[in-house]
This record gives sequence, structure tokens and C-alpha cells, in this order.
Amino acid sequence: MSRLAYLGPSGTFTEQALLARPEAVGAELVACPTVPAALDLVREGTADAAMVAIESSVEGGVSVTLDELATGTPLVIVGEVEVPVTFCLVAPEGVGPEQVRTVGAHPHAAAQVRRWVAANLPDATVVDAPSNAASASALVDGTATWDAGIAAPLAAERYELTVLAAGIADTAGAVTRFVLVAPPGSATVPARTGADKTSLVVFPGEDRPGLLLEILESFALRGVNMVRIESRPTGEGLGNYCFSIDAEGHLEDARVAETLMSLHRTSAEVRFLGSYPRAAGGAAGPGSPGSPAPTSVPPGHADEDFAAARAWLDGLRPSR
Amino acid sequence: MSRLAYLGPSGTFTEQALLARPEAVGAELVACPTVPAALDLVREGTADAAMVAIESSVEGGVSVTLDELATGTPLVIVGEVEVPVTFCLVAPEGVGPEQVRTVGAHPHAAAQVRRWVAANLPDATVVDAPSNAASASALVDGTATWDAGIAAPLAAERYELTVLAAGIADTAGAVTRFVLVAPPGSATVPARTGADKTSLVVFPGEDRPGLLLEILESFALRGVNMVRIESRPTGEGLGNYCFSIDAEGHLEDARVAETLMSLHRTSAEVRFLGSYPRAAGGAAGPGSPGSPAPTSVPPGHADEDFAAARAWLDGLRPSR
Amino acid sequence: MSRLAYLGPSGTFTEQALLARPEAVGAELVACPTVPAALDLVREGTADAAMVAIESSVEGGVSVTLDELATGTPLVIVGEVEVPVTFCLVAPEGVGPEQVRTVGAHPHAAAQVRRWVAANLPDATVVDAPSNAASASALVDGTATWDAGIAAPLAAERYELTVLAAGIADTAGAVTRFVLVAPPGSATVPARTGADKTSLVVFPGEDRPGLLLEILESFALRGVNMVRIESRPTGEGLGNYCFSIDAEGHLEDARVAETLMSLHRTSAEVRFLGSYPRAAGGAAGPGSPGSPAPTSVPPGHADEDFAAARAWLDGLRPSR
Amino acid sequence: MSRLAYLGPSGTFTEQALLARPEAVGAELVACPTVPAALDLVREGTADAAMVAIESSVEGGVSVTLDELATGTPLVIVGEVEVPVTFCLVAPEGVGPEQVRTVGAHPHAAAQVRRWVAANLPDATVVDAPSNAASASALVDGTATWDAGIAAPLAAERYELTVLAAGIADTAGAVTRFVLVAPPGSATVPARTGADKTSLVVFPGEDRPGLLLEILESFALRGVNMVRIESRPTGEGLGNYCFSIDAEGHLEDARVAETLMSLHRTSAEVRFLGSYPRAAGGAAGPGSPGSPAPTSVPPGHADEDFAAARAWLDGLRPSR
Repeated sequence: MSRLAYLGPSGTFTEQALLARPEAVGAELVACPTVPAALDLVREGTADAAMVAIESSVEGGVSVTLDELATGTPLVIVGEVEVPVTFCLVAPEGVGPEQVRTVGAHPHAAAQVRRWVAANLPDATVVDAPSNAASASALVDGTATWDAGIAAPLAAERYELTVLAAGIADTAGAVTRFVLVAPPGSATVPARTGADKTSLVVFPGEDRPGLLLEILESFALRGVNMVRIESRPTGEGLGNYCFSIDAEGHLEDARVAETLMSLHRTSAEVRFLGSYPRAAGGAAGPGSPGSPAPTSVPPGHADEDFAAARAWLDGLRPSR
Repeated sequence: MSRLAYLGPSGTFTEQALLARPEAVGAELVACPTVPAALDLVREGTADAAMVAIESSVEGGVSVTLDELATGTPLVIVGEVEVPVTFCLVAPEGVGPEQVRTVGAHPHAAAQVRRWVAANLPDATVVDAPSNAASASALVDGTATWDAGIAAPLAAERYELTVLAAGIADTAGAVTRFVLVAPPGSATVPARTGADKTSLVVFPGEDRPGLLLEILESFALRGVNMVRIESRPTGEGLGNYCFSIDAEGHLEDARVAETLMSLHRTSAEVRFLGSYPRAAGGAAGPGSPGSPAPTSVPPGHADEDFAAARAWLDGLRPSR
Repeated sequence: MSRLAYLGPSGTFTEQALLARPEAVGAELVACPTVPAALDLVREGTADAAMVAIESSVEGGVSVTLDELATGTPLVIVGEVEVPVTFCLVAPEGVGPEQVRTVGAHPHAAAQVRRWVAANLPDATVVDAPSNAASASALVDGTATWDAGIAAPLAAERYELTVLAAGIADTAGAVTRFVLVAPPGSATVPARTGADKTSLVVFPGEDRPGLLLEILESFALRGVNMVRIESRPTGEGLGNYCFSIDAEGHLEDARVAETLMSLHRTSAEVRFLGSYPRAAGGAAGPGSPGSPAPTSVPPGHADEDFAAARAWLDGLRPSR
Repeated sequence: MSRLAYLGPSGTFTEQALLARPEAVGAELVACPTVPAALDLVREGTADAAMVAIESSVEGGVSVTLDELATGTPLVIVGEVEVPVTFCLVAPEGVGPEQVRTVGAHPHAAAQVRRWVAANLPDATVVDAPSNAASASALVDGTATWDAGIAAPLAAERYELTVLAAGIADTAGAVTRFVLVAPPGSATVPARTGADKTSLVVFPGEDRPGLLLEILESFALRGVNMVRIESRPTGEGLGNYCFSIDAEGHLEDARVAETLMSLHRTSAEVRFLGSYPRAAGGAAGPGSPGSPAPTSVPPGHADEDFAAARAWLDGLRPSR
């Protein structure tokens, strides 16, 4: 039986994402207090994989995940899940809105209800909760330093709390993308499906001001479609950034392989974060896997084209 | 007398940044509970300008500031200040490290001491404090929901707290960049100095997958050096990003003006966030203004070159 | 009455091109022995304009024209005409194919019948005739140093020669493009029609190895479609080239004007060779003017877009 | 003993170029009447290689050579020679300048003395001679249809003609580049030296307006320096061009191989015209081989970088 870590406690969106994966069937699910803790279980070999949030349609990249994956012992993404995000304000029985002075929320949740809270609870202080579920569970086990929590509907139900307000996200249609992370080379590393995504981090070396332009051209010229690029500070001073990138295609696609090698040659470091099947596109709940459309490959960039070019080149060499 | 807003309470790095500006001399400084609150004072006309953090060498862009400036009533940056960031763990007299169960910290401070806290206070919960100073002041006024705070040395001193540990940032040499923000068109909008920076946000329209490459080429082809680019979600679904950009040069530089107009023509929207003198480069404390080196302009991209090209073009037209 | 020069004598494709122009009606047509001679008449003011060949679908750019226009007193193109090219082998009465030892042909004509001559007159020497008409006329006036000529059908008819073989071009469908050239600033310089072409020559300075890439990007980024680019030696040693370019659009189009100014700023020299209406596309004979399709302008690059961007930029400046 | 073809008769610059090659020692040199004739001997297997002019510092690319190499049975360039070009006007004894009515000259020679002839022999007609030597030799064997010839000094000497004027080229310092051409795969195909050049022709397919920009980016992005690019008409109508390209490096350089394969994938056809040692740079006469500087390879594009990137990529794949 496999062990799968996730950001707990029970009731988080992360758990919901994990439950949408086939790997979760029959597995032991291990709730962790933080993203680094979940990843560390995988790095130590205590867990086989971990589910963590990586991107929010409202807040953008999840910094802690991006930074943890970009450094330390390498891990690779083996799958992704998109989960629709809806929030409610929950409180123990008997607590009314007028009594709420402090609100527990995970910072990303807090960001997504910022305007609602400012308008409806103008005097309340938002307190950092370690997860979207803990903001609810702590109200039950007595450890909460807040009066009410911003939580997923699932958490409200599971911890039997009163829903003071539902659907309170500032923006409707919010989605969070989660990734399942495993050690590189493990049995869980997925084969090419034709509808894949590849993630990587590129570290420019010194004196490489034009590198971002070169990176984009490296992808474009080989017909590889980039779907996300974010700059993250390397921590070595203002203006020192690395680039976290998602592109369509798989390490086993010739056009992706050549792009990766090109980046490896021209930057200080490239960290490969995995090739894995794309999510179906729409947000997925359990039981709605769908089937993502195959990646569209521009003319001249398919594996056959690479093979034909190689054969042509080999034929040019004099047979000595 | 002018009124200048900042993220309070007294003792924050933001206040320190504000005090480094000439505008602060003789001004009334207004502490605000949040970044949006400080900006709203300016938007309403209640304050003349506001100082807010925009970029951390450790955490990257300050999302709330980037997002607030990118939307709503337009504001422009009129100056920037870089402040070295050092943290200490402070507590009321009589509280020792072993008694610390909860630590109050602003999320950006929390991120910068994450590893230190994990190693030295493994059982402590980090609680969201509204600012680096509030994490300290709340310990004094009794409103703290935490036992100890992560604060600036200045705050420790000002609130007469015990420093349990100093210099606890995970990365030495951290710097935060602050910007002074004012209404566009106001008397505070700075003239060109020759060592300027221009900030903007570009919103791609629909179906513009190659826009980022075009944006970079638009700058490069006109000899304008981009010093920061970050993608931020527009909130309209995964994969929908706008680009927050800093470039060298001033709106009054012909090469910058042409670049801005080019972006305006080819994207859905460009929001101009101001042209202002660059910080001296090293981190600045009060009294160390320094003098930044003039922007280096590649051959062919100076104002004289633009003027000569215009004169040449005008001469080509038949005089009818 | 205007005087128009052309490469003579009467009966050349150049004369045919000139007759297709409205300017030819009622004008005095002056036959010249060479392209430089025709251009010199315009430069001296003896002729108002000159018609010269500039591009052949078989041979490429007409070097003498390209080089003459790229140097010396500036001239501008005020119109273009495309003429279908068909050749026949002509001889005086009584001369049969078996008697042909030398064939007079203009070098460009010679190139277009090279394979036919090699196959059908394998022992004949091709002799340089100054024009496609002179290869025929010289057979009549007794100045020919050749037995038969490669000529236009029109010339055969006009000089009453026997057609030994017709339609002998190696490639069917050949077209030659001619341009009408006038002094810059003259009354003949054409106004914008919306279906225009602009010609120019760009001279890279020293140490500008990447300039060609920059030139192409300068056009592409401003939505200007380049329809011809040729490198021509500057005469200053192997590897020293200038670039002769035709692009869609008119000097009065904002996107073209900005592109021209950009090239002026970043290269050693730009020579403007005129903006003029495009030929209808198909080859034109007299009486088939046709009407070329208006230039398609990509989104964001129309004059209105440039004007809107300028207005936006002007609005960003503080009113002091 | 090998047989080497060249554009004859004896006394041409082409012969001079051929004599500068080590292959010429002890070989039978076969004078041919035209460039196509010389190349055909190689294609038929009658000659082992042929020396032909490919580029003039005054006239640019030699169209007949470029077009012959771009089509028909493939041949490859196995070496290049640069020859300084100086011309004189030669005539049989007793013929003075005032008696010269016709001047025999190869068209490329004619182009290089065009202004001198116009100024000094304004009434003379220039007649097409098949080579720079034939313009002289024909004056001796009685086949000349001209009174005087434009010839190389060597030809004047060899045919014992009077030099009426020497050093008459319009531009001093002219150089012509010659290439030695052989069947692909033959024993003469040169190994990599580290100071090589690679020649090729790229045929865009239909609907590929941006291909030239892509071609340039393909080279630039892989650190391959392009030293010559010329457009040549494909003969399929105005505006249909192929691109004749010389770049630094050898087919066996990984960066060149990847560039070639990339062009093969994205264009309709690529014709490889050979990898061969670069000429020493200055113009070479017999006995001045010199030693060209090794090709400078930008960081990240050396063979070791390609090998390291490949090894890195292979290591990313899970070992199943």
C-alpha cells in the first residue's frame, strides 16, 4: 500500500485534489501541517508522493511550492488536478457574524476573500491559519485563535460548523491547480500520453540580461507552447530571478527534449520538474477525469520530422 | 503640510523607507492597517502619497501591492527606496523561547524566517500579523494573539521588547524595495533625471499567446533595458496573466515613449505606473541617498537619434 | 510635355512597360543605350522620369539598377509595372537556324534562354547585346556582331525579322518588374492609395553582424510586410553587403514611418527609394491596369492605432 | 592522377584560384567554356572536381554558380580560394586606344570596369566574352568579335598582348571568391578543421512569409554565425525566392548539425552545399595559404555543451 502526503488536516482542497487521483484508491493518506513538511516526507522516502497546490487562478503561483520544488533534493511532478475553489465563513454554533473579531484563513484563501471581508467584516482581523481545513477544525478542537474560519464547504460539513456565509470568494470561477509530486525515477513517473505538460525552472547565470527573450525564442522556434511562466527571486538580491515554466509536451517529445537541452546549454542551471498528463482543462472533481485534447504540434516539429531531419543529416556525411 | 500614508503602525520597514524620502520632512505621517487602506487614502485625496512595499529580494513581488496598483483608480509611482531587511524575534519581558507557542509575523516576514522558525521553534504556529511592527506593538498593547513577534530591530527598540534572537532571516543581505505612490498628474510626479525607471502593467487580450515574446522584443528593439517582469493572474481563470514590468528610462525618453505606445497598440491594455528616479542601487537607509549611475543608452536609441530620424523622415516627404 | 527616358531602342520590354503608364500619353519617349544613361538623364534634369527593369522572376534583382539607385544622386521610384516576358529567336530573311553561329542577347535574356540555346544551338556563342530590342534592330541596321537575336515578339515585328523559334524561355510564366524613377520631391511623387509599396536600401555600419535580424524584426514588430529583400555588395570587400528591400505600405503610413525611422537610427545609412502604388499583382500589359487589393494591416498597426497610442501617451504626462 | 575542371581558357582568375589549391599539383586541369560545363564534367564523373567563381566583392553572388549548385544533381563545396581581382585593357600589337570600338569582357569583369569604360572609351560597345581569359585569347586566335579585351594581367602576359591600360577596376581591392566543387561523399570531402564554413540553400514552402526571420533566429539561437545570405529567385514567379547561405562551422559541429536539422524540419527543402575549411581571410594567391583563425564559439554552443546537455537529458528519463 502506498503512502500519499497532503496538506492537512482532513477537509482541505488539497485532500479533495488527492482524492481525485487513481493513486489515492487504497492508499494511506497522510495529512501534513505545511507544504514543506509534505514534500519532506517524499524526500525522506516516508511517503511515495505528495499533493500540493501550485497555482491559483486568483493569487497566481503558490510561492512556497514553487520555491520548495526549485531547490533542495529534486522531486518531479507526476500529475496535476484542477479544483474549483469556493469558500464559506464558518463558525461554531451560537456565534453570529456580529461576534466575529478575528477570522482564521490560509493566506491564499484570505487573498481570495479580501474584498468580501473588508466589506462585510470591516473590523475583523485576519489571522494566518495553516490550511483551509485548519481554519475550521481548530474551531472544533479548541485550538483556534480566531472566532470564525474561511473554509471549504467540505470542511464546514465535516466539522459540523455553522455556515455564516457561502460563496464569499471575491471572484467567481476561481480554480486552484494541484500537483502530485514524487521522487524522480520512481515507478510513478508517467509515460507520454500525447496530451502532456512539462515543468521546469531555469536559472540564468550572471550577466545574462537577454536570457528571458532567449528562453521564449527557444520554445517558440521548436514549436513548443509555453502555458505558464513566472519569475521567482533566487534570494540573491533584488533583480535576481529564476523562471518557473510549464510547457505543453513530454520529455519524450523530440521538440521538448531539444528545447530542454538548449536551455541547459545556455543557462546556469535547469531543474526538470517532470512531464505528466495535462488535466482535462476544466476543473476536476472526483469522478470527472475527462480526457484532455492531444497537444497540437505545429508543422515540422513532430517526432517524425525530427527523425527525418536526423536521417537526412546522417546521409550528408561522407562514408569514409 | 503634506500627508503621507504608510503601512503602520510606527516601527515598520515601510515607515523607515518613508523617512528616507525628502517628502517626509515636515509631513504628517499616517499609519494605515493595510496596503489597500494606505492606497485608498491617496485615491480619496485624504493623503498626498503612500509608501508601500513592492518587491522583496526573498519573496519576490508583493502581490497585494502589484494587484492593487494594477486595478482600480490609477496611481503612479513617484519614487522608490530600497531598505535592508533584518529580523529579530521579540517578546515581552519574562517570556523565554521555550514559552513561545505562537509567533506573530507579517506573511512576507514569515516567509523570510521560515527555515529559522522551523529549526528553532519547531512546535510554534505562525500567526498572521498585519505588519512587521504590529507583530511587536500588539505584544505591548495586549491585542496580540501570539506569544512572540518577528519584527524589525527598530520596532523592538521602540516598543521596549526583549530580543530573543536577532538576525534570524534565512538569507543574509535581504532587501525590500518600497515605492511612493501618488495620483497621476500631481505636483509630485518627478521630472526626468537621466537615471530613471518606468513601471507598467500589460494586459494581453484574448488569443495572444505570443504576446510575452513580442513585449520583450518591443523593449529590446528600442534599446530599453527591462529590469523586472512578473506575471500576475488577472483572476479570470488559470493561465490568464498580466505582466508587471519595470524598465530603465523615463516616459520623456523617446525610446521609452515609443515602447509604451507600441505596447498600447498591440495589447488589450497598458497601465502606466509611473516614471521616477532609480534608487541608488545599494539598499538605502535614511541619509544615504547616493546618486544612481545614469542609464546607459545603446547607440541609436538616444533622444537625439530619434529627433534626427524624425527630421530625416520629414525631409523625405514631397513638399506639395 | 514631359520627357521620359527608357532603355532603348524602340521595341524593348522596357518601352512596353513605359507605354503601360498614364504618364506616357503625350510624352516624349527618349531611348537610352544603358540603364545608367537613362537614370542620368533624370538626375541631370533632362528627363522627368525613367523606366528601368528592377527585378526578374528568373534572374532576380537587376544588379545595375539596384546598384545605380543605391548610390549617387538620390532618385525615387514613383510607380511599378510588371510585364510578362516571352522571347523568340529572330534573324534576317534567309538566315536559317543552321547558319546561326552567334546569338545576340541582353545578358538577362541570355540567362532566361540558357538551356534552350544549349540544347538547340549547342555550337553558338552568345554575344552581349545592349538590350532586348538592339539584339533585333542591329540585325537590320547592319551593326550586329551576331547572326540572330533573342528578342521580344514586339521587336521581331517592328524590325520585320523572321521568327526562327518562339516561346523559347526556359521557364514559362516569367515576369519582369519595371520601375518608373523620378527626382525626390517632384510633382510625380505619388500620394498614398492604401495599396502601396515602399522601397529602401539599408547600409549596416561596421560591427553590426546581427543587423539583418534586427531589420526583419523592425518590420515584423510593426506589422509591416516585407515582400523582397536582397543583399548587394557595397564594393568594400567580401562580406560587406547592403540590403535592398521592398515592403508593403507608404511613407505616410504610421507603421512604415516608424519602421523607417527605426532603421535610420540603428544602421549606418538608409536610402529611401520611394513609396508608390503596387502593381495589380498579375503582370500588366497596356490597358490592363487592374486594381491591387488594399494592403492588409494587422490589428494594432493602423494609423488610428498609432494616433490612439499617441493620445494615450500625451495624457500620461503631468500637466505642469 | 585527378582531373580538375575550371572555367577556361588558360589564363583566367579561375585557373589562378585552382593553381592555389594543393589538389592542383600533378593534376590534369581541364578548361571548360562555361560554369555549367565545368560542373557537368563533375556530375558525369569525367572530372573529380571543378573550380568556379561564387562571389565577387563588387558584383555579389555569381548567379550562374549559385543557381547551378542549387538545382540538379547535388554537388558539394570542398574548399574555397579568394583571389584579388585586377584588370587591364589588352589589345593586339598595333591597336591603340583610339581604335577600340568594341571591348570583349566577361559580364562580371564588365561590371567592375563599367565606370572606367564609360569615362575612357565612351563610344565603345562592351561585348560578352565567355571568360576573362577568352577576352584576351580570342584576340590572338582570331575569333574575337571585339577590338580589345578586359583581362587579367596573367592573360595579357600569356597571350603576349599589349597592355593599353592597367589597374582599371572601378573599385580597388576587389576580391573574387572561388569554390572547388566535388560529388558528395567523395574522398575529397574535407574533415573538420575548427575553422570551417558550411554552405546551404533553403527553399521556403508556400505560405511561409516569416521564414527568413525564422532562419536567422535558427542560426543565432544556436550560436552559429552567418557570414553570407542571398536571395535567389526560384523561377516560379516574382517574389518566390530561395536563400543561399554561408555560415561558420562544420556539419560535424553539433551546433551546425542542429541548425541544419531545424531548417530541414521547417522549410520545404534544404540543400546542403558542403562543409570546408575557410579561406585564410585575406585574398590568397598561390603560395599564401595562411591559416584562418579558429571559429569562435559562443558560450554554451560547443560540442562539449551539447554532449553535456544530452547526458543530462538522458539522466532525467526514468529507468524503467
